[in-house]
Amino acid sequence: MPKKVDHKKQKENVAQAVWRVVHKHGIEKASVRNIAKEANLPVSTMRHYFSNQSELLLFTMEYLHERIERRFLKFAHQLKKENISAFDAAKQLVKFFIHILNQEEQSEMKVWLSFTAKALHDEKMKELSRQMYVELHQVMERAIQILEEGKILKPGLDTELEVQRLYALTDGLALHGVMRPDFLTEEKVDAIITNHLASLCDMEDDRNEVEDL
Amino acid sequence: MPKKVDHKKQKENVAQAVWRVVHKHGIEKASVRNIAKEANLPVSTMRHYFSNQSELLLFTMEYLHERIERRFLKFAHQLKKENISAFDAAKQLVKFFIHILNQEEQSEMKVWLSFTAKALHDEKMKELSRQMYVELHQVMERAIQILEEGKILKPGLDTELEVQRLYALTDGLALHGVMRPDFLTEEKVDAIITNHLASLCDMEDDRNEVEDL
Repeated sequence: MPKKVDHKKQKENVAQAVWRVVHKHGIEKASVRNIAKEANLPVSTMRHYFSNQSELLLFTMEYLHERIERRFLKFAHQLKKENISAFDAAKQLVKFFIHILNQEEQSEMKVWLSFTAKALHDEKMKELSRQMYVELHQVMERAIQILEEGKILKPGLDTELEVQRLYALTDGLALHGVMRPDFLTEEKVDAIITNHLASLCDMEDDRNEVEDL
Repeated sequence: MPKKVDHKKQKENVAQAVWRVVHKHGIEKASVRNIAKEANLPVSTMRHYFSNQSELLLFTMEYLHERIERRFLKFAHQLKKENISAFDAAKQLVKFFIHILNQEEQSEMKVWLSFTAKALHDEKMKELSRQMYVELHQVMERAIQILEEGKILKPGLDTELEVQRLYALTDGLALHGVMRPDFLTEEKVDAIITNHLASLCDMEDDRNEVEDL
């Protein structure tokens, strides 16, 4: 009886191999041949799933996308149960997307950056990259909304502008976090996010004060 | 008499060829062989200058670095002569580094992003990438200093933190500018920077008001 192949599992195995190769050696080493070797699969099997490098990378990016989304839903679910203040909820939401908190997440940002650079030249990847841009923009929108619903957002702010500012700041911090983890420490990121959100809020307690670094 | 070769010019020609290839097709197509073709040079001549792809990319990144620096010095020199307010000087300085203002500059950000992703895996490029990180950090420091010297910076701010926040915001806006130029328009970037700097300042005129988009 021939061995039954679990296609889903095999593709996941491939996506993880791409990830490891991109993380260790950069996206230019993620050829179908190299990935076959890393995933311990015959090149012919790889070609059965992916006819070229573009398809392979697109699939991995989608895999990464789903993985982040799953973790985000789990995180949002937990946050709901925790009964924390609107300010802390917004802060946790933003911090979730700054992947410098642990080594595993940092590697995600590294791989992500390689894909983003590649997506500037690859039409299919560009489409997914744009979609993720919109989704992340919505998360930042949600963070500002939480402040609004908690009745602590300063009146008269241009919320559309604030969402874009927060999003750019978040991506910039994530980028600098992988470039210079020695310089932009976790404590500094926390203080920057805290102060940024506090500057958007009117609060009676002492949150508005600048935290000591 | 053999034709005299201008080595400096030839290397510059090569750097521009790398740039064109990275901009059009991505960094993974910038092999010594492909660049020789693009620069219209024999592969042997290319190998004389660059023994591998890493050296070729490092040279191009240095070339890009020098080019940006030259333009920055010219810009800073002009700014000095213009006799503008401290607020506008700081704003111009920040905006100079958000490369979405014209197509040529935008393409620089595209190439830059590819190099940054690559530098995460290449030790030699990492060194230059870190150096540029420090230099850009200094420019942001200068922008905050200008506000301080102009006596409009709010008292009691943690300036180190504000420099890092401004730098992350600037890089985030530059990144989003190349990813979604349709969405993050020049007007929006201008409004975000204006509002961000205004939020750091105490000013008597109407600059603190949110600009209409």
